[in-house]
Amino acid sequence: MNAKPIAVILASGGLDSCVAAAWAARDYELAFFHADYGQRTLTRERAACRAQAAHFQVHRLWEVDLGFLGRLGGSSLTDPTLPIPQGAREAPGLPSTYVPFRNALLLAAATAWAEVIRAAALVIGANILDNPGYPDCRPEFFQAFERVMELGTGPDTRLKILTPLLYLDKAGIIRLGLELGAPLHLTWSCYQENLLACGRCSSCRLRLQGFAAAGVADPVRYVPGGRHAWREAEGPGEGA
Amino acid sequence: MNAKPIAVILASGGLDSCVAAAWAARDYELAFFHADYGQRTLTRERAACRAQAAHFQVHRLWEVDLGFLGRLGGSSLTDPTLPIPQGAREAPGLPSTYVPFRNALLLAAATAWAEVIRAAALVIGANILDNPGYPDCRPEFFQAFERVMELGTGPDTRLKILTPLLYLDKAGIIRLGLELGAPLHLTWSCYQENLLACGRCSSCRLRLQGFAAAGVADPVRYVPGGRHAWREAEGPGEGA
Repeated sequence: MNAKPIAVILASGGLDSCVAAAWAARDYELAFFHADYGQRTLTRERAACRAQAAHFQVHRLWEVDLGFLGRLGGSSLTDPTLPIPQGAREAPGLPSTYVPFRNALLLAAATAWAEVIRAAALVIGANILDNPGYPDCRPEFFQAFERVMELGTGPDTRLKILTPLLYLDKAGIIRLGLELGAPLHLTWSCYQENLLACGRCSSCRLRLQGFAAAGVADPVRYVPGGRHAWREAEGPGEGA
Repeated sequence: MNAKPIAVILASGGLDSCVAAAWAARDYELAFFHADYGQRTLTRERAACRAQAAHFQVHRLWEVDLGFLGRLGGSSLTDPTLPIPQGAREAPGLPSTYVPFRNALLLAAATAWAEVIRAAALVIGANILDNPGYPDCRPEFFQAFERVMELGTGPDTRLKILTPLLYLDKAGIIRLGLELGAPLHLTWSCYQENLLACGRCSSCRLRLQGFAAAGVADPVRYVPGGRHAWREAEGPGEGA
């Protein structure tokens, strides 16, 4: 008998949403939501997401096409003509990897699904410490969106947004993941590559620093030299 | 020289958004946003939207695919196996034509575009008097969404939501449209048909009642007898 309420996980295939799923799995039946928003590494992310869904024995997986978001341009995460930043921290201001209003769109699409399958919660692995420049990772953004969900859905729908990682840094997220037995070997973080992680993009560096700080080896594979590239001195203009 | 700020119109092809566009055209350069969300009458709505865009000499028209919303099911507006309500007013409660969280999704997608083209406003023709059962047509919903836009977009983005028709009924909207010279002959409201309006669905009835109350003839074409069908007594359970 499974009488747990349903939680929709905004599952990217990455490390954060995997740990968020492991956290939610204790109290909820998981439903995985994955979006194509034109990200360069879509194929690899989707494979990671499906592998995690299998690991968690998820019965509901919804892959949705928000590809128009990538075609809007304006983000290095979706536009192959713009360089992916290579520092672990991006320069101050709006990061070049910011995708216009992406989290609001993901939350809106996930809410529509959550309303139909009568879920009780949306779970998003957002965290603010490692992503200070993203406006749509701030706690007040999620609070405001929760209000929109409350007002914009039917009277029988009761949905909350859960952000279990909001105030953790990458090392803290990795430690929590290890505690919970999250399948970190099935996650993908690289912004750049689809087969072996590059180790050099901002997302790889943040991940590798996090594993180093947590004192464990990252179980995913990197290009030759990639695993240690984050220790190299970073060039000017690419952050500290 | 055109130094007007840009307003993104959530253009459905219908009467309300056409009047909202005519209203906004006085102060803004218009950009038309139209979404496929799996509505039954998509082809006809899109044709109406394009004809209006041509009328307003719009340079930016973005047609976006939110078709997954229709495939979620749960709404008579997108699911051909559910009957379209035939009364001018639907029964109390959540209308069967409610599409889960649709307006939030439309606003989120339009906001992403608005951020990229540096628009100053989103304009939506929502009105609460004729749509009392839709949670996502309420003023507080739009206020809450505006807060999400403020928090979830980049620091240089300043976007407001304009709802010029919020407190008007259909007759009031038609009168305003006539005053502003809105191309009402290019609008499409029928939920059911693609060629000649049925006159019997809830949307046609509301429209025809509005034209009657405004004392002018509706310029669009109806199936034989359809134009006067709304005067017929309505069956039980279909509203007053």
